Amino acid sequence: MSRRISILGATGSVGTATLDLVGRAPEGEFEIVALTAHSNVKALAELAEKFRPEIAVIADNAKADELADALKGSGIETAAGPVALVEAASRPVDWTMAAIVGSAGLEPSAAALQAGSSLALANKECLVCAGEYFIDLARQRDALILPVDSEHNAIFQSIYPGQDKFIRKITLTASGGPFRDWPVEKMKSVTREDALAHPVWSMGDKISIDSATLMNKGLEVIEACRLFSLPPEQVDVVVHRQSVIHGLVEYIDGSVLAQLGSPDMRIPIASALSWPERIDTPAERLDLARIGQLDFEAPDKQRFPALRIAREALLAGEGATSALNAANEVAVAAFLERRIGFLDIPRLVSDCLEQLDADHALPQRFNGLEEALRVDRLARDRVRGQLASVSA
Amino acid sequence: MSRRISILGATGSVGTATLDLVGRAPEGEFEIVALTAHSNVKALAELAEKFRPEIAVIADNAKADELADALKGSGIETAAGPVALVEAASRPVDWTMAAIVGSAGLEPSAAALQAGSSLALANKECLVCAGEYFIDLARQRDALILPVDSEHNAIFQSIYPGQDKFIRKITLTASGGPFRDWPVEKMKSVTREDALAHPVWSMGDKISIDSATLMNKGLEVIEACRLFSLPPEQVDVVVHRQSVIHGLVEYIDGSVLAQLGSPDMRIPIASALSWPERIDTPAERLDLARIGQLDFEAPDKQRFPALRIAREALLAGEGATSALNAANEVAVAAFLERRIGFLDIPRLVSDCLEQLDADHALPQRFNGLEEALRVDRLARDRVRGQLASVSA
Repeated sequence: MSRRISILGATGSVGTATLDLVGRAPEGEFEIVALTAHSNVKALAELAEKFRPEIAVIADNAKADELADALKGSGIETAAGPVALVEAASRPVDWTMAAIVGSAGLEPSAAALQAGSSLALANKECLVCAGEYFIDLARQRDALILPVDSEHNAIFQSIYPGQDKFIRKITLTASGGPFRDWPVEKMKSVTREDALAHPVWSMGDKISIDSATLMNKGLEVIEACRLFSLPPEQVDVVVHRQSVIHGLVEYIDGSVLAQLGSPDMRIPIASALSWPERIDTPAERLDLARIGQLDFEAPDKQRFPALRIAREALLAGEGATSALNAANEVAVAAFLERRIGFLDIPRLVSDCLEQLDADHALPQRFNGLEEALRVDRLARDRVRGQLASVSA
Repeated sequence: MSRRISILGATGSVGTATLDLVGRAPEGEFEIVALTAHSNVKALAELAEKFRPEIAVIADNAKADELADALKGSGIETAAGPVALVEAASRPVDWTMAAIVGSAGLEPSAAALQAGSSLALANKECLVCAGEYFIDLARQRDALILPVDSEHNAIFQSIYPGQDKFIRKITLTASGGPFRDWPVEKMKSVTREDALAHPVWSMGDKISIDSATLMNKGLEVIEACRLFSLPPEQVDVVVHRQSVIHGLVEYIDGSVLAQLGSPDMRIPIASALSWPERIDTPAERLDLARIGQLDFEAPDKQRFPALRIAREALLAGEGATSALNAANEVAVAAFLERRIGFLDIPRLVSDCLEQLDADHALPQRFNGLEEALRVDRLARDRVRGQLASVSA
């Protein structure tokens, strides 16, 4: 029987990898309901022509006509703008890939869960900014959240049904980024180019910088705590430069279950797409004898303060983690524009959190997405203000 | 509710480790029905006094009175000899630890399965000599076989319910033994002492030698194929000197699930004892950052012919694997008695298999345990004859 699926963020790396897998599946296995994209009309129209969804939606309102033109006569419905996005995400499906980047992903992802779809979650913000909301929503609708991040997907795969109550701790691995072995003095003068040279995964600019500061891992610790209902002290991070083991679950008996694999996003996506079954992928097979050696070390908390900042935000609650995420986005953009130095990123984030906390602007828990989006804007404004005052 | 359990081979390393865990469990969690031992009356009586089974059985008939005397007035029933052993193993229980060493374990283990008990399997011979028989028996009685060998237990833990049909291959890790890095010339003059110095696990003499020849891994490949219903080409071996990862399961999507842990037999035993739940153990926690490095390499088939011999036997069927196991036992004993050299072990085994095959004495599949035991004796006699002719 055909499974009805929607892909929110179809033209990004996770969206195209998902469609790559769908395209390899036997004819009729998947029926695509909605494909959405941020602003790339050309790529969206091409994917729509190929995968024949019921509807294609472009988030950018200004591109409504361009999309309609591109798909004229195709029989595929088109729409544009945030409201249309939420409407498309609400259409009844079995499975939704939530791969919209940033806080723009919150409402469409929530709409999919609300409509009772399983949610393959690639968007970080849902759990970082409004984790309790999403977890509660999934529970109410009896819908599954399937993590797509390689680390969380690894943890998810390593939990045998019913054994979550026997977990002693989980461990997320971190490649350590390009500055893993750099002395702190040298890190002060890191350039945009240095930071974009990720040693293992090929990723977008924002996530490459987050990987270099280890803020990415900090955000993942936050996600993991919310997704697996664990306190921060039960979520550990280990630096593992080869990125072969993606995550580990230690049980009370001393058994550690782990998921390993080549660094190919199609592996966790395939797991989420077919769960609890499995489908074939063209991903490179893991060959440990060829790899030869796997290394592990504790992360250096001095050189990578982002991990500590993220843990502190996690303890402070949803307001703090939401602000952390927003402040970090603005700071990373400023670094990519060469306006600030590499070590300024965590400093700006930390300052922003301190100020908002002093203003009592960071609730422990949000009542709905609007509040999360409000704190998100507040934190962005605060960091932008600080950047402007520095530039002035 | 109390679980009724029996431990066959209670005084060996697996038996005592099992009782160590039982002793740590909350009062009343386990009720011991039978404890059995080969010949160590003193150790068996002490364990019986402590764990209060219904019955204590010593396999050695000559020690019947000694055991009865030792437990006089305790209220614990005593018995001796192979028939009593099978009777004790047949008493209704929820779970049986099959930890009798060698082919003596076949009949009592089968009796436990026959009586409908879950079987925690530490005895190698059940699967190597009569795997199809045991697997069929478990299926008929709807009884679970829970592997206790660290490698098989790792594989077992790494298979999510219902996903066995998506396995592409499984990999057993091998420490590589003490001669992992020795040139073949030097291996010719290996002494008993060299071979007993196992780098990671602390084990009995027989299994230490098997680990040094890699015959242990060969026998484990045979067990794994039968236990997990996989053809030989889907069961791989990788040398991993630290013995941290015990086994890996690769699925068709490229995901690899693995179980890791400190080299402490209480971890796999605890898993089998509490499955599908988990219990606490005092085993050392795995600390990858402290361990730092894990190494992997393909096994050297030239220097370790035992792996190839075992695979050939597996392809030939149950007669060949049964003869392989028996011939190896006699050859290892001769090496431990300094009667033959280290490289003579696989040569003697290989010669024995060739001769018995030429005699058409190795059926592809056994009809019951008697036939397995007959081939076992035949192979032993053949190797002993060869040893005698060499000594003469």
